[in-house]
Amino acid sequence: MSRVYLDHNATTPLRAEARDAMIAAMDVMGNPSSVHAEGRAAKGLLEQARAQVAALVGCTPSQVIFTASATEAAALAAAQKDQHGGVFAALPTEHDCLRVWADEELPAFFGQDGNEDRSGYGVMDWLCDKVEDFWDHTDGPLALMAMSAANSETGILTPRARVSPSGRLNTLAIGVLPYSVVCDITQMAGKMPVLYEKDTKRTSHGDRRPAYMILSAHKLGGPKGVGALINFTSEDPQAILRGGGQEMGRRSGTENIIGIAGFGAAAEAAARDVAAGRWEEIAELRKILENTLADAAKTTIFVGKSANRLPNTSCFATPGWKGEAQVIQMDLAGFAISAGSACSSGKVKASNVLRAMGYDEETASSAIRVSLGLETTEQDIRRFAEAWLDKERKFRARAA
Amino acid sequence: MSRVYLDHNATTPLRAEARDAMIAAMDVMGNPSSVHAEGRAAKGLLEQARAQVAALVGCTPSQVIFTASATEAAALAAAQKDQHGGVFAALPTEHDCLRVWADEELPAFFGQDGNEDRSGYGVMDWLCDKVEDFWDHTDGPLALMAMSAANSETGILTPRARVSPSGRLNTLAIGVLPYSVVCDITQMAGKMPVLYEKDTKRTSHGDRRPAYMILSAHKLGGPKGVGALINFTSEDPQAILRGGGQEMGRRSGTENIIGIAGFGAAAEAAARDVAAGRWEEIAELRKILENTLADAAKTTIFVGKSANRLPNTSCFATPGWKGEAQVIQMDLAGFAISAGSACSSGKVKASNVLRAMGYDEETASSAIRVSLGLETTEQDIRRFAEAWLDKERKFRARAA
Repeated sequence: MSRVYLDHNATTPLRAEARDAMIAAMDVMGNPSSVHAEGRAAKGLLEQARAQVAALVGCTPSQVIFTASATEAAALAAAQKDQHGGVFAALPTEHDCLRVWADEELPAFFGQDGNEDRSGYGVMDWLCDKVEDFWDHTDGPLALMAMSAANSETGILTPRARVSPSGRLNTLAIGVLPYSVVCDITQMAGKMPVLYEKDTKRTSHGDRRPAYMILSAHKLGGPKGVGALINFTSEDPQAILRGGGQEMGRRSGTENIIGIAGFGAAAEAAARDVAAGRWEEIAELRKILENTLADAAKTTIFVGKSANRLPNTSCFATPGWKGEAQVIQMDLAGFAISAGSACSSGKVKASNVLRAMGYDEETASSAIRVSLGLETTEQDIRRFAEAWLDKERKFRARAA
Repeated sequence: MSRVYLDHNATTPLRAEARDAMIAAMDVMGNPSSVHAEGRAAKGLLEQARAQVAALVGCTPSQVIFTASATEAAALAAAQKDQHGGVFAALPTEHDCLRVWADEELPAFFGQDGNEDRSGYGVMDWLCDKVEDFWDHTDGPLALMAMSAANSETGILTPRARVSPSGRLNTLAIGVLPYSVVCDITQMAGKMPVLYEKDTKRTSHGDRRPAYMILSAHKLGGPKGVGALINFTSEDPQAILRGGGQEMGRRSGTENIIGIAGFGAAAEAAARDVAAGRWEEIAELRKILENTLADAAKTTIFVGKSANRLPNTSCFATPGWKGEAQVIQMDLAGFAISAGSACSSGKVKASNVLRAMGYDEETASSAIRVSLGLETTEQDIRRFAEAWLDKERKFRARAA
């Protein structure tokens, strides 16, 4: 029986459109910095992809800076902190590529239910503590703050990600804060619309858009090793990779033309699938998955089930049954899933995200993430549920 | 008539082996950080490519750190300067990706003939000035110094690149200096053997190998957007891209699996072609080119013609005839060449390399680079020579 891949938040297969674009780009051999015909042809591919990515994320092509990963885009954004108050702050639920640069770690944004935590000392309190007169602050941003659009482990959207008036899954709106925001749209892009309320309710603090967004190609059907920083500020970011002056001086190094062509094609296809409502079908499959498991596995906790989430992500913890053990058992049974984000999945430790949300150590170390892709079928889901429940019964028998 | 591409130092076409490896890698969809079977398959591709690149450059696989470009590798090397005396110094003839990090610019290494400049105040004098007792210095390195194996614009090998006892084109040996060296092998790798006199004449200053080497895939038939830092030191470099902990914590970001697979395949094929003496055939074509042009174009200066050079590179200046104008005229005539390195070729300015070698502004701004590839034929060369000489005659007629 063929394997079932349910780890699409770690990486998702290359889309046919990306594959075709990459193979075509293999024959375009010039260096885009060269002035001759061969160079100009390569430059043409680069700019076509830039327009495709811009269309996906709702920016102008010149606001797209291609990088080798969302990780590189995060480092580039964090390096701009001096333009934004001099402090880089990150939520504890952010990806490590952002948290690693944090001068200051913010308190958690979410409660255990995945909704904004208003009971404890949450981000809003923290913000208010920092600014005596929150709304009257006019001296520019106080910090550059990392705030993802959607969490990679749980799929939970930040509370500021809203259901749009049209009833479609989501419109992302960053609030009016005296903070510049780096918004990680790596998991959201290509699964939901990424739209901003441009220039509305403009205040002295700027408009409702983030200063920067980061994303990567391989989460939406492009190749691994390509990403982008979206720069909504009026200043060019100061480059961390310097030399040849590529990307208008914002990121040097000969461009990954083949990979970028794949990113562009994947972005265009992803935008089309989002518009067609394809992910709403995936959300239905997730509902089947979670309901099937919940019916039988009474101790299992579904993280953020009542919160706004990405349509494809299910994170659930079965206290006492280590996430790593579940991943290995399911791998042997023919299913690819993960415990935590892929980048750190080699390390066996409790999910930092779940800990930050208030779960205890045992629960946080007993979680797995099942993430669906566009080609996931109901049969895949039912096969997974059957196999996982079989192992869950055995776990309970051992624990009893 | 088909175009003739003679700008292989800017970038060279994808080798068939790299293309095949990349297309095969498109079907390996896992994230190499994932522990499941799909992740392990991707990890397998990554480690195969690492071994292939290690074999090309003569290091162990664990010494290879994959990056998105030689530019990124240069930035990563320069960031280690505190481990090497705290100063990063670069020759004025280095690529911008290294020069941009220089705290101190060294005097030129070469004279106008491309041989070590012993007449003026050269690098050796500078080194001696810095160290009162050059050989007795035992306090560790004084600086991290960028020194390319071969210059990208002229093809001139550093004087310390020697003809090996076997009479083969080259063995690279970095001298025993109280300096740690970042050796840029971007243009040499895949065109000449990269070999070190390992651990011989070991002194308190370390062995004869550089501390680091940088290279990129697309100069040797791999894809653009992939490079590597080779780390010969016993310390892991401190990462400039952080987060997920890929590349053993030395460079975070999901790996460009497709591109890296292409790099590995290209490295293996390139090593085979070097061993087979393929580039000696290319050196013969260059000889035909330079002799044909020199016979007719009496004012043209061939830079470094008597020096040890890469087998494929010819740099020549025709004072008064701007390099940029030559590039455009030849492009219209169907030939791709360059004026200076590709990264900066969009900017019209005198070659920094030629200026540093002692050429005047007019000569330095009148140079072009013709760089041959493995598929370059004698017919290509003769067609180019005929077309260029035709334009050179017209230039002389206008100037007269």
